Amino acid sequence: MANSACSGGIEARADGRAPSELRALSIERGFNVYAEGSASVRWGNTIVHCTASVEDRVPVFLRGSGGGWLTAEYGMLPRATNDRMPRDVSKGRINGRSSEIQRLIGRSLRSALDLRAIGERTVWVDCDVIQADGGTRTASIIGGFVCLADASRGLKKKLSLAKLPLQAQVGAVSVGKVRGAMLLDLNYEEDKSADVDCNVVMNGKGEFAELQGTGEKGFFSRSDLEEMLLLAREGMQVIFALQREMLDLSREEEEIFDGFF
Amino acid sequence: MANSACSGGIEARADGRAPSELRALSIERGFNVYAEGSASVRWGNTIVHCTASVEDRVPVFLRGSGGGWLTAEYGMLPRATNDRMPRDVSKGRINGRSSEIQRLIGRSLRSALDLRAIGERTVWVDCDVIQADGGTRTASIIGGFVCLADASRGLKKKLSLAKLPLQAQVGAVSVGKVRGAMLLDLNYEEDKSADVDCNVVMNGKGEFAELQGTGEKGFFSRSDLEEMLLLAREGMQVIFALQREMLDLSREEEEIFDGFF
Amino acid sequence: MANSACSGGIEARADGRAPSELRALSIERGFNVYAEGSASVRWGNTIVHCTASVEDRVPVFLRGSGGGWLTAEYGMLPRATNDRMPRDVSKGRINGRSSEIQRLIGRSLRSALDLRAIGERTVWVDCDVIQADGGTRTASIIGGFVCLADASRGLKKKLSLAKLPLQAQVGAVSVGKVRGAMLLDLNYEEDKSADVDCNVVMNGKGEFAELQGTGEKGFFSRSDLEEMLLLAREGMQVIFALQREMLDLSREEEEIFDGFF
Amino acid sequence: MANSACSGGIEARADGRAPSELRALSIERGFNVYAEGSASVRWGNTIVHCTASVEDRVPVFLRGSGGGWLTAEYGMLPRATNDRMPRDVSKGRINGRSSEIQRLIGRSLRSALDLRAIGERTVWVDCDVIQADGGTRTASIIGGFVCLADASRGLKKKLSLAKLPLQAQVGAVSVGKVRGAMLLDLNYEEDKSADVDCNVVMNGKGEFAELQGTGEKGFFSRSDLEEMLLLAREGMQVIFALQREMLDLSREEEEIFDGFF
Amino acid sequence: MANSACSGGIEARADGRAPSELRALSIERGFNVYAEGSASVRWGNTIVHCTASVEDRVPVFLRGSGGGWLTAEYGMLPRATNDRMPRDVSKGRINGRSSEIQRLIGRSLRSALDLRAIGERTVWVDCDVIQADGGTRTASIIGGFVCLADASRGLKKKLSLAKLPLQAQVGAVSVGKVRGAMLLDLNYEEDKSADVDCNVVMNGKGEFAELQGTGEKGFFSRSDLEEMLLLAREGMQVIFALQREMLDLSREEEEIFDGFF
Amino acid sequence: MANSACSGGIEARADGRAPSELRALSIERGFNVYAEGSASVRWGNTIVHCTASVEDRVPVFLRGSGGGWLTAEYGMLPRATNDRMPRDVSKGRINGRSSEIQRLIGRSLRSALDLRAIGERTVWVDCDVIQADGGTRTASIIGGFVCLADASRGLKKKLSLAKLPLQAQVGAVSVGKVRGAMLLDLNYEEDKSADVDCNVVMNGKGEFAELQGTGEKGFFSRSDLEEMLLLAREGMQVIFALQREMLDLSREEEEIFDGFF
Repeated sequence: MANSACSGGIEARADGRAPSELRALSIERGFNVYAEGSASVRWGNTIVHCTASVEDRVPVFLRGSGGGWLTAEYGMLPRATNDRMPRDVSKGRINGRSSEIQRLIGRSLRSALDLRAIGERTVWVDCDVIQADGGTRTASIIGGFVCLADASRGLKKKLSLAKLPLQAQVGAVSVGKVRGAMLLDLNYEEDKSADVDCNVVMNGKGEFAELQGTGEKGFFSRSDLEEMLLLAREGMQVIFALQREMLDLSREEEEIFDGFF
Repeated sequence: MANSACSGGIEARADGRAPSELRALSIERGFNVYAEGSASVRWGNTIVHCTASVEDRVPVFLRGSGGGWLTAEYGMLPRATNDRMPRDVSKGRINGRSSEIQRLIGRSLRSALDLRAIGERTVWVDCDVIQADGGTRTASIIGGFVCLADASRGLKKKLSLAKLPLQAQVGAVSVGKVRGAMLLDLNYEEDKSADVDCNVVMNGKGEFAELQGTGEKGFFSRSDLEEMLLLAREGMQVIFALQREMLDLSREEEEIFDGFF
Repeated sequence: MANSACSGGIEARADGRAPSELRALSIERGFNVYAEGSASVRWGNTIVHCTASVEDRVPVFLRGSGGGWLTAEYGMLPRATNDRMPRDVSKGRINGRSSEIQRLIGRSLRSALDLRAIGERTVWVDCDVIQADGGTRTASIIGGFVCLADASRGLKKKLSLAKLPLQAQVGAVSVGKVRGAMLLDLNYEEDKSADVDCNVVMNGKGEFAELQGTGEKGFFSRSDLEEMLLLAREGMQVIFALQREMLDLSREEEEIFDGFF
Repeated sequence: MANSACSGGIEARADGRAPSELRALSIERGFNVYAEGSASVRWGNTIVHCTASVEDRVPVFLRGSGGGWLTAEYGMLPRATNDRMPRDVSKGRINGRSSEIQRLIGRSLRSALDLRAIGERTVWVDCDVIQADGGTRTASIIGGFVCLADASRGLKKKLSLAKLPLQAQVGAVSVGKVRGAMLLDLNYEEDKSADVDCNVVMNGKGEFAELQGTGEKGFFSRSDLEEMLLLAREGMQVIFALQREMLDLSREEEEIFDGFF
Repeated sequence: MANSACSGGIEARADGRAPSELRALSIERGFNVYAEGSASVRWGNTIVHCTASVEDRVPVFLRGSGGGWLTAEYGMLPRATNDRMPRDVSKGRINGRSSEIQRLIGRSLRSALDLRAIGERTVWVDCDVIQADGGTRTASIIGGFVCLADASRGLKKKLSLAKLPLQAQVGAVSVGKVRGAMLLDLNYEEDKSADVDCNVVMNGKGEFAELQGTGEKGFFSRSDLEEMLLLAREGMQVIFALQREMLDLSREEEEIFDGFF
Repeated sequence: MANSACSGGIEARADGRAPSELRALSIERGFNVYAEGSASVRWGNTIVHCTASVEDRVPVFLRGSGGGWLTAEYGMLPRATNDRMPRDVSKGRINGRSSEIQRLIGRSLRSALDLRAIGERTVWVDCDVIQADGGTRTASIIGGFVCLADASRGLKKKLSLAKLPLQAQVGAVSVGKVRGAMLLDLNYEEDKSADVDCNVVMNGKGEFAELQGTGEKGFFSRSDLEEMLLLAREGMQVIFALQREMLDLSREEEEIFDGFF
């Protein structure tokens, strides 16, 4: 990815990146021998393992509806972070941050899946952070989509569907304002000192599945928002291309994916 | 509040409101005799009780920092909703939705409070939904700000501060796209059938503390976002005015609040 | 309510009441738009919201029995008290005091309901303390009965019953011995310094549904008990009258209620 | 113990007892080699193990007060009952019935202990039901008092107190109305079919520490109450005598205990 | 039991036992009136109550299999130990040690039961430590087998089985190396200072159901292991004989048990 | 590793291994950028991530003792197994199997660490199963030792110790009897159909830290045990060599490790 012009700040990023430059991003597809889909995402020092599991039943509120569901769960290994964190189970409950993140991931990936087509089935997407250096929720969505696409392939075959039960390609990226500069894809140090932080979940048409902006240390203006959304969009091109490449699409699938843009 | 022109849809709202019209909104300040601040917000059929409590200590990660903290908690009475819901405590844990909402409220109100000025103290803002008909998280932020302002008055006095430890006036409103029409302040029925749903937390300058948009049943475009933010801004004028009115500001306080716009 | 003669002590009550005088008591019926019955009780500074919810199934131990059940749950908002209390859910379990109180409320209201008549249904009575200044369990029973009566009206209609599925009017009041004086309806300060504390749940015939006396700071004699029960009975007249008034009985219902005395 | 005249019913008790006859009651003192006091109570088929443990600190709310505390805990072995019950820990929480009972035991025994005399110490009384056939809470109080007396002896010695830190002898018994007959000391079958059930906790002077009457299947009148209290008093004589006998009082202690009557 | 020659150490045991001498061991069979089998084991100062309960269903993973299951649960009364321990339920979860022990007991007793013969039923074996002085897990297995044998008798009758649904007699004992000496049946003090600790679960043929050796303070060699297994075998003779004696076998049962050796 | 002679069975292993052949085993050291030590173990299809974290305090029972502690925690990602398993935190508690395993890992690694030398510090070893195909507990111990060695290097430096605070090299392997054949290093399918299963934790001198044998489907004899221990010893040579190789020992460290054999 080429450097874009600096968008305001003059300070260089600690890792030498240009403001609109993503960290090195790679996806290892199929790392898990059991799951219906799996993808390990490495993004700078952030590592997230994602798996998709298909279960032949739905939550109570959907029984008899004929439609399916997608649930995401998000966790961190105790030493994913600089200081060791106690396991959630030691306290007997999931922590609030994880709870908020897994709801975001779930909604985002649900928007990519054709819930009617899969019938009364649940796709569980598990995102487990092996190492955290910022962007774990966006990495989860990126990897989660790859798993989901593989699980969709399995469902198409198993249920003899006419087409993949997907309705969009979905990815995510963070942007933020750090000491006056708009930056794409914040690492942990940048995130910690960001004034504004925005997680953008998009489809290939540049539409939003989710948009979550936070004035961590104050407020952000309409023009801050504009700038952040532009930057996010730029980053999404790289991400979408990588997802497609990793999925190794058949000609038929290429067409479907082309329709997502 | 005057009707604005209809922003797209032609269908009337079930309760007869114009697209940019808020439901009847009122705030009862000081309903609780013990709390450092309290406000009961009634917004259509939604009723939320908010209290602010000041505690003379901070979470572990802030000890020795000299600064304070604000934590929000959000809960619902079992029959706040159409069907009775089991209490969180019956399951031994807070549900994911509440967890996500209380984090939003906490971040929003934290942005209004001058955490340095109050020293090592925690303000607890409790938002308990007595009756839910959409907009409970925005009502919580609106009422939470009123509580917080009263708690700030108390702290100013108790700590002999030169000025109120507030740095912004903060309020919130929801907007959404329902069957093609952009609508302000969704009630539960509208929210349920919304394609897009956006919660906007703003300060008086039209800047964002938080922005959370969700494509509940698909995706939303940049122009959807524009439209929603315009509508939200319109609604915020009414909300800010009501908060100020209810707070019954002294001349000195008026000046501070004027500075927030 | 007229002052009765002072029953032993010579000290005046802090709020100026006579020993056998209730605090101002009012009931707002139907405050909740969803519940099958609802009543908000204000008793001095004590405020309790009660709702009745009807569910079309019974606990496991009653399945197939043909009869119904009534369960009460009791909770407090975090700032119902002078100092903020952590939510039960934060600790993962209901506290012992709440557990004890909700069992008392449940047994008391169960004695008023004709469990056979309603078939395999459960009435949930939720009592949530908005503000606590003594007497929250008795207020819960008073308001709970009003909810229950409204829920009974609904069940009579829905199930085409010949009569209201009620078998008694039930109310409750506390009495205690404070610095040698027998007092009716203790507020928090009185309760805290009481030597003896007694909660009396009665029907209109002066019979007991529940009687719980505690020698908080020692013991109480048979004659203490006599005195307390007399005082309680006096208070119950006022309470029963208010419940009937608030229920706005039809002529037919009047007859049924008359039979309860 | 002599039979008293039958108090209303004509039906014989299934186990052949007279209405005012206790089941065979025995106490094994000192069954536990570690505890500061221990007593195993066998009452008909009911078996409860009680221990008293002294801890050199008090709950937070008493720190710095100079006074002590007593806490009771009550549990049942899984097969204490006819059908095996899951352990509380399997559900992650104490059940409501146990919670209510242990609060009753705690208040009752607290009234017997001189909390000022023992300084900032806590006496834990654990009551574990080995086998349940009615009367487990009263057996717990009876045995708990014996433990407590032994723990008091230890504290007197350890703290060089002038006298035993006890201020009363305390015991308990149940009474109930079963098919029209007033019966003392209900076993499980009687308890299940009782219309009224009353647990009476008394000191040697016939004063009440606790009185809990419940109209299980209806209501009870003032005269029912009179009858039950008389019957309870009769039973308490036997119980107090057994406790004293088991404690094997020294001459000096005899005097103190005599003062309790 | 005869003393064996001292196996290495020269130090006498604090309680005067020879190295290969068991503490006084006795079993009270049938102490519980409800359970399908019950046995209270007293082993020196260790006391464990065991009950077997039969339930007419199996865990989910066995439904439809036609076979049965056996589950063991292990708990301690709070004052079973020298210092009072908080109840598991106070922390909301079973502690790790109990969890490990109950899995050992469950596997051991499962090996004695003919799971096919009993059909889709579960035998619950509850082992509750009344007093702990070392060897609680082995005492649980010893007593658990006696309960199980009695429950098997009941199942044989109830299901009209041709023979007892048992396939082995099972018992257990601990051995350890304490200050250089190999000792049989460690009490708490010995266990605490043991360098090596081994729990051996055997059948009558000297085969192992379970073998768990731990180098508490270092490691143990092959010859240490040999020595420990010899010692364990010696102890098992006494234990098996006591179990048989307590079970009071019929002639027919004698034959079956003879086949276990 | 060369095939050893077949030790009894004649059936070939499904993956073509000889009875005494380990699956392909590799260790990636230092996969985690934050931890004081980290090792990812891949053993056939089993993958376990291990990290060591050093904390500057000890559990309550060691405060003031001057010595340190080591605690292990063991968890599985939800899709580590063929069917997705719910997270422990969803049920609010760690499952019994994990609890048993982490205690085994903890004791095993504690025997390798010089707890006195490290002062009042705790080493946390986290073992998280990414993919499970048998042998996860032995893989955890193998990888855990590598982490621990790296953490020891850090502590030696940080505390200026004269030598590495290690007192042994520790590894582990499973052996079992499957359809009559003794096999080394069981995979999941073999483990499931094993009659006997034994986990052996050894030091370089062939001494045991832990030995856990289970007759999953019956019992095992002394000669079975002999055979298993021989097989385990054979496998341990390969494992110890790999650990040493991966640790890339300095000359000075080589000497210390040589002393472990």
